Amino acid sequence: MKNFIRLLIGAGENCSDIRYATGISTPDDFLFFSFGEKKCAIMSALEIDRARHDARPGVTVCSETDYHGPKRLDIISAIADECRCRNFAVPDDFPFGVAEKMQQSGFTVIPHAASFFPQREFKSAAEAELITHSQRAAEAGLLRAVDILKSSSIDGKYLSWQGKTLTSEILRAEIDCEILRNGALPTGTICAGGTQGAQPHHFGSGPLMANMPIVMDIFPRSPQSGYWGDLTRTVVRGKAAPIVRKAYEAVLEAREHCKKLIRIGAYGAEIHCAAEAILEGHGFMTGAGDQGQFGFFHGLGHGVGLDIHENPRLSPRARTALQGGEVVTVEPGLYYPEWGGIRLEDLVYLPPSGAAAICLTEAPDFLEI
Amino acid sequence: MKNFIRLLIGAGENCSDIRYATGISTPDDFLFFSFGEKKCAIMSALEIDRARHDARPGVTVCSETDYHGPKRLDIISAIADECRCRNFAVPDDFPFGVAEKMQQSGFTVIPHAASFFPQREFKSAAEAELITHSQRAAEAGLLRAVDILKSSSIDGKYLSWQGKTLTSEILRAEIDCEILRNGALPTGTICAGGTQGAQPHHFGSGPLMANMPIVMDIFPRSPQSGYWGDLTRTVVRGKAAPIVRKAYEAVLEAREHCKKLIRIGAYGAEIHCAAEAILEGHGFMTGAGDQGQFGFFHGLGHGVGLDIHENPRLSPRARTALQGGEVVTVEPGLYYPEWGGIRLEDLVYLPPSGAAAICLTEAPDFLEI
Repeated sequence: MKNFIRLLIGAGENCSDIRYATGISTPDDFLFFSFGEKKCAIMSALEIDRARHDARPGVTVCSETDYHGPKRLDIISAIADECRCRNFAVPDDFPFGVAEKMQQSGFTVIPHAASFFPQREFKSAAEAELITHSQRAAEAGLLRAVDILKSSSIDGKYLSWQGKTLTSEILRAEIDCEILRNGALPTGTICAGGTQGAQPHHFGSGPLMANMPIVMDIFPRSPQSGYWGDLTRTVVRGKAAPIVRKAYEAVLEAREHCKKLIRIGAYGAEIHCAAEAILEGHGFMTGAGDQGQFGFFHGLGHGVGLDIHENPRLSPRARTALQGGEVVTVEPGLYYPEWGGIRLEDLVYLPPSGAAAICLTEAPDFLEI
Repeated sequence: MKNFIRLLIGAGENCSDIRYATGISTPDDFLFFSFGEKKCAIMSALEIDRARHDARPGVTVCSETDYHGPKRLDIISAIADECRCRNFAVPDDFPFGVAEKMQQSGFTVIPHAASFFPQREFKSAAEAELITHSQRAAEAGLLRAVDILKSSSIDGKYLSWQGKTLTSEILRAEIDCEILRNGALPTGTICAGGTQGAQPHHFGSGPLMANMPIVMDIFPRSPQSGYWGDLTRTVVRGKAAPIVRKAYEAVLEAREHCKKLIRIGAYGAEIHCAAEAILEGHGFMTGAGDQGQFGFFHGLGHGVGLDIHENPRLSPRARTALQGGEVVTVEPGLYYPEWGGIRLEDLVYLPPSGAAAICLTEAPDFLEI
């Protein structure tokens, strides 16, 4: 697209495309454009010095006032004048209100239906290293939780730690502190005990029970790099019921089997269905009842990078083949309103070289602790 | 807009409009529409049970499959059929790619240039209470930092704590842990010492120095409510240079004076300019030099709610009058590359009743500790 100016508007903290393009992370929106060899981030006075420091090589950082700002349309007109081009390519999620005003001003604006930076899906070894760094912070958080659970006492139905009833809130705060001490930011860590774990995205609240599964899904982000980690383990403090142990073993088998299927040329849907078949083979059925859904009712995995959920997907609808460079989660789960949930999630890097997939997760597996 | 379906697409975690409308917070995008009395959130299988639990009264939670999902355009067509209406009103930042496909399918799509929920700017007492809750978590973090700094020893040029050099990273992790223990999520806490503090949004890194200002800007969010707090204090461990003390006193005077100007009918620009005049009156000039900008070069304050930066602004360009219900920061600052920065930020609630503005910040002020 030589005759198009590529234009982005976003906050580095929320918009991974603009962070990927510039290396700049801000709480507020800014503009970025590229045209030929030129790549330029246009910043407010408040952010310009920090942006100059953080910008990727090759990205020029300019002030809004150099482009007749701060009004967006004025800046965009100045960009068009500078490039002598009135055609813009924008991402699919570009703000409609801005696009419409651009069209009314006589600019051509074409949204990109596919990913604006398709190369974001394929990670270099250096990017895999940054993801691994966040994964290590997640693992440190998990190990802290396991220590606390091990040192908790079983006080009738509930767990007690340091003289108080151990709650999801307390356990989450301790996991998250450990993540912070490892240089990453925690973001909505799940600690869901008992039947709360039957909802895959339930954060968990209130007292934690002995002898019941506790789902811990930990996904911290590096504030420096913006890359995420993603880890889930499910443990029981005390003794697991036979059905819980059976579910754990089925989920573990599905995860280990599917990790081996991650290779160049494999289809996401095929890997997802392999997990489904193993879980069903163990007698675990999926469906919906009075209390909501049960069984295995989410995708097996997703890409992880500057977004916590990104392409590719390992799901029934994933009809493209892996190409090498992807970092994906493999996270089969079983959820039943009667006893809760089991989810076991590892993170896998498929090197672009064609070498075998590498598991980035080092955390051990255990059920009863 | 009776003959328009109001339509939103967003993730509750990032898109405050959809969170405000539904009460639902998700990591991934979902759709919401309202038409007449009908308000409906359309969720994937993974989120539907949690969404039903969290949804605000009056919001119906439906499954994507009820609306011919998961493809967005199919869902939108099903909404149009149900409402017998082909006109949609969307926010200004609605995804352009979706809007264009809707137009190609014969729907009318009108972006809202102003805020989609202008009432978000005006907080009820209950909302001010939720903001205050996050503010208390910020204050707990600050007091933790002050304790650490007080108990640190001055080891030549640098500070030492628990036998190690005290760094921005260590101090930030301790502040953030205290925030977590108070039930909120830390998000990029600033601990910028010495000349790093001359950049208002520098996070701070490396060893912290004695006798130099340390800017701590702490803005946690409640994961339950989504509302933010926002607090800045600047302290010196040891003895402040005369210029630093002079800047501190000027900034404190500007903040206290401007808090008294927050009343119904006051203009944001007028309050900002009052701060500027006080700082200049103390001899602190604003401009740009070889090492970047210096003086007071950001807005005096901004609204805080479900977004950390929202309307209204207290800035030179803020040409609307306060109406009552706003929660705004008042945060004058002075920044000089030679010695760093001083910023002092309080949070103020202007009740809709016409009563006097209430300072939501309880943290004390101090320079040398």
